[in-house]
Amino acid sequence: MAGEPRVTIWNEYRHEKNDENVVEIYPEGIHGALAAMLKEAGFRVRTAILDEPEHGLTDEVLNTTDVLLWWGHMAHDEVSDETVDRVHERVLGGMGLIVLHSGHFSKIFKALMGTTCDLKWRHDDTERLWVIAPGHPIAEGLGEYIELEEEMYGEPFEVPQPDELVFVSWFGGGEVFRSGLCYRRGRGRIFYFRPGHEENPSYHNPDVQLVIRNAVRWAAPTPGATPVYGHAEPIE
Amino acid sequence: MAGEPRVTIWNEYRHEKNDENVVEIYPEGIHGALAAMLKEAGFRVRTAILDEPEHGLTDEVLNTTDVLLWWGHMAHDEVSDETVDRVHERVLGGMGLIVLHSGHFSKIFKALMGTTCDLKWRHDDTERLWVIAPGHPIAEGLGEYIELEEEMYGEPFEVPQPDELVFVSWFGGGEVFRSGLCYRRGRGRIFYFRPGHEENPSYHNPDVQLVIRNAVRWAAPTPGATPVYGHAEPIE
Amino acid sequence: MAGEPRVTIWNEYRHEKNDENVVEIYPEGIHGALAAMLKEAGFRVRTAILDEPEHGLTDEVLNTTDVLLWWGHMAHDEVSDETVDRVHERVLGGMGLIVLHSGHFSKIFKALMGTTCDLKWRHDDTERLWVIAPGHPIAEGLGEYIELEEEMYGEPFEVPQPDELVFVSWFGGGEVFRSGLCYRRGRGRIFYFRPGHEENPSYHNPDVQLVIRNAVRWAAPTPGATPVYGHAEPIE
Amino acid sequence: MAGEPRVTIWNEYRHEKNDENVVEIYPEGIHGALAAMLKEAGFRVRTAILDEPEHGLTDEVLNTTDVLLWWGHMAHDEVSDETVDRVHERVLGGMGLIVLHSGHFSKIFKALMGTTCDLKWRHDDTERLWVIAPGHPIAEGLGEYIELEEEMYGEPFEVPQPDELVFVSWFGGGEVFRSGLCYRRGRGRIFYFRPGHEENPSYHNPDVQLVIRNAVRWAAPTPGATPVYGHAEPIE
Repeated sequence: MAGEPRVTIWNEYRHEKNDENVVEIYPEGIHGALAAMLKEAGFRVRTAILDEPEHGLTDEVLNTTDVLLWWGHMAHDEVSDETVDRVHERVLGGMGLIVLHSGHFSKIFKALMGTTCDLKWRHDDTERLWVIAPGHPIAEGLGEYIELEEEMYGEPFEVPQPDELVFVSWFGGGEVFRSGLCYRRGRGRIFYFRPGHEENPSYHNPDVQLVIRNAVRWAAPTPGATPVYGHAEPIE
Repeated sequence: MAGEPRVTIWNEYRHEKNDENVVEIYPEGIHGALAAMLKEAGFRVRTAILDEPEHGLTDEVLNTTDVLLWWGHMAHDEVSDETVDRVHERVLGGMGLIVLHSGHFSKIFKALMGTTCDLKWRHDDTERLWVIAPGHPIAEGLGEYIELEEEMYGEPFEVPQPDELVFVSWFGGGEVFRSGLCYRRGRGRIFYFRPGHEENPSYHNPDVQLVIRNAVRWAAPTPGATPVYGHAEPIE
Repeated sequence: MAGEPRVTIWNEYRHEKNDENVVEIYPEGIHGALAAMLKEAGFRVRTAILDEPEHGLTDEVLNTTDVLLWWGHMAHDEVSDETVDRVHERVLGGMGLIVLHSGHFSKIFKALMGTTCDLKWRHDDTERLWVIAPGHPIAEGLGEYIELEEEMYGEPFEVPQPDELVFVSWFGGGEVFRSGLCYRRGRGRIFYFRPGHEENPSYHNPDVQLVIRNAVRWAAPTPGATPVYGHAEPIE
Repeated sequence: MAGEPRVTIWNEYRHEKNDENVVEIYPEGIHGALAAMLKEAGFRVRTAILDEPEHGLTDEVLNTTDVLLWWGHMAHDEVSDETVDRVHERVLGGMGLIVLHSGHFSKIFKALMGTTCDLKWRHDDTERLWVIAPGHPIAEGLGEYIELEEEMYGEPFEVPQPDELVFVSWFGGGEVFRSGLCYRRGRGRIFYFRPGHEENPSYHNPDVQLVIRNAVRWAAPTPGATPVYGHAEPIE
């Protein structure tokens, strides 16, 4: 891949239009905040939102996307199955996918995981994300942990065992959560990253931003051989 | 779980009714052959087929099934989404699932894996399934390998990396294949086992039968705590 | 394997002889407390301690042991390399090994892991072990979590990524820890279980006891084919 | 890390001095052949051999090495335990390690794996290394498989289940082998790559060279937070 990955940030973009508290934190939307900090880091960035035609995820957009970020919460069901199928196919074909916070219940994440992706939750807690894999590229440049005021997500988190576990979160209310999970599916890489409740300013936190930038680089495609499927003549 | 697992064998049951060669090998159907050898081993066994109402997989049947075996090939699309969803939910809830041979393309396996489950194939080859994990319970009692006349399946096999890899197959035509794969999804266990082309008598092979019996015991539920999801009050 | 596994409990047995507080908690030693509850559950149990000849782990003892439990802390270096090598060989050959608490720094655990097994620690904290894998046989019969007064162990825990992660601990002081880890090495199974500081009565806790009984059953050998190594004639 | 990784190639360098057939294939030694192709690719390359003081692996050399390659066969036991311990410590601290062919029996690989690393073998066979993980960076730029005239290595290979399985080999004599294995240990990455018998010119094969170059980039350190171990004050 020549140059920095081409990133598309997908956002449901509902809370930030309707809820004053959220508007104050993310006046340009969550996608706007993420786009600004990724552009500053040199990535080529676009955004797409639910209310655009084809939810902004046309063939043309996906064909020129190396890594897709996904934030959704209250309107998962409004995402069309056609769009989900298209994104699913691209991920298996090599496009990176970073699923953020309440995106755990998005159609695309559930389809890729094959499980309910269910969990516990509660607003207004203290979260401390501990680095479990200190040599992992997604943790590069961090200290021992990241501390945030956040919504709590608690175990059990019904997802397949990740290929790599990068963060585990501690919550003040007494829970724990696997909060940074790496998966390979087909030729694509998927990273689930827990923080990002719309009422907390986590995407303005420098360490959270660093993790997302690291994750974009980690998730970018490394095009190997195009796999060959179907009927095959014997080699021997 | 008291006593041996309660097994339900699901079979598409089309080839064995329409193709003389297959009728000769499996006069009672593939489900019949599997049922006979599992009963002999002391399991409580039922069968279900595509053409029964609800494909034979009613709530009542699934509620009293510990491990479900699945063989399908030419009619994957005729299985209703309702039935697939019901089986999916039961697997996540703890029911074991053993997917056989061409079941790799079944709706239920693809839904659980989140990938295409695609592969290479060719009829009429020699297969040698090497035991890769000699201490695994599914390999208990086997020698170093199992040798069969079989259809070839070749890599890449587009599935998530398994939690445990028990067999890798060698084929005379020059290919290899991961042919015994263990997965946990939710509270359930899934085993994919490659052999079983309808034109080869593999389910009459004593070692293949031994693997399936071992796999039934391995996949049987071990009911832990019922996980609690949703809103949660703080403990501290 | 006929009947329940044959268990040998190895204990350093120093704190329980020299420290009054510990004597009060474990008057028969930690091995004595574990032996009593495992016998009651129907296992065939022996104990062995550091100060016996060959540390109590003669060939004869190991030859008739299905699962070995290991507790050590202040005298890891007094265990002879010969004994460690012998235990190592047996584990690879199929014997189960359950490493408890401060045994993370034992010679045998470090040799099997290939890493330092280092961690953070602090006395006198509250621990809550959350079940991360609700369908795992080692968690069978538990509720959502186990709560203990215990020594804190904190991440990062320098061990290989486990094959299965069963528990993650929350600590009152703000740390997390992967506290129930499953590994396969050779034909043997290894379970690391965190609780058991000598000044806390954790091995009298019914849930901790249940986990250890479950782990003994999980770790018991499943003798597959004896693997064949070395020069091999071609099959084809 | 600024620029391309700094590579040190360690070679036993005995066969290439004493055996005419091998001298013809590798007149500058296996390390010389590997150094030439890695230099050409822009890496900063040094070599070290068994017969140098400290086997050429002084603190100074290791302190300025990002990725270490290891080829050994007939003289594993002549490598001093001090050197092995030093390399072991560096790998856990982040240095990449690529273990080649008969290096599976080296002291350093066995210490990192915690197992015997035993296998089957036979000279003079055809090997076909299939790409199992088409999107993996180590497979970048390859076709579906690599074909070589090589020594056979056969399963079972007594190593821990790899974190990622990149290649599986087919052999003409009827065996299979997991021939490209990725591990993380501590902050370091380890890649085992099977080909490279001294009597076969595999390190002159362009695809084998490509894999090794890819592996060097994959194994290069990504310095995260320095992990903190030992006694810790409470955060809360």
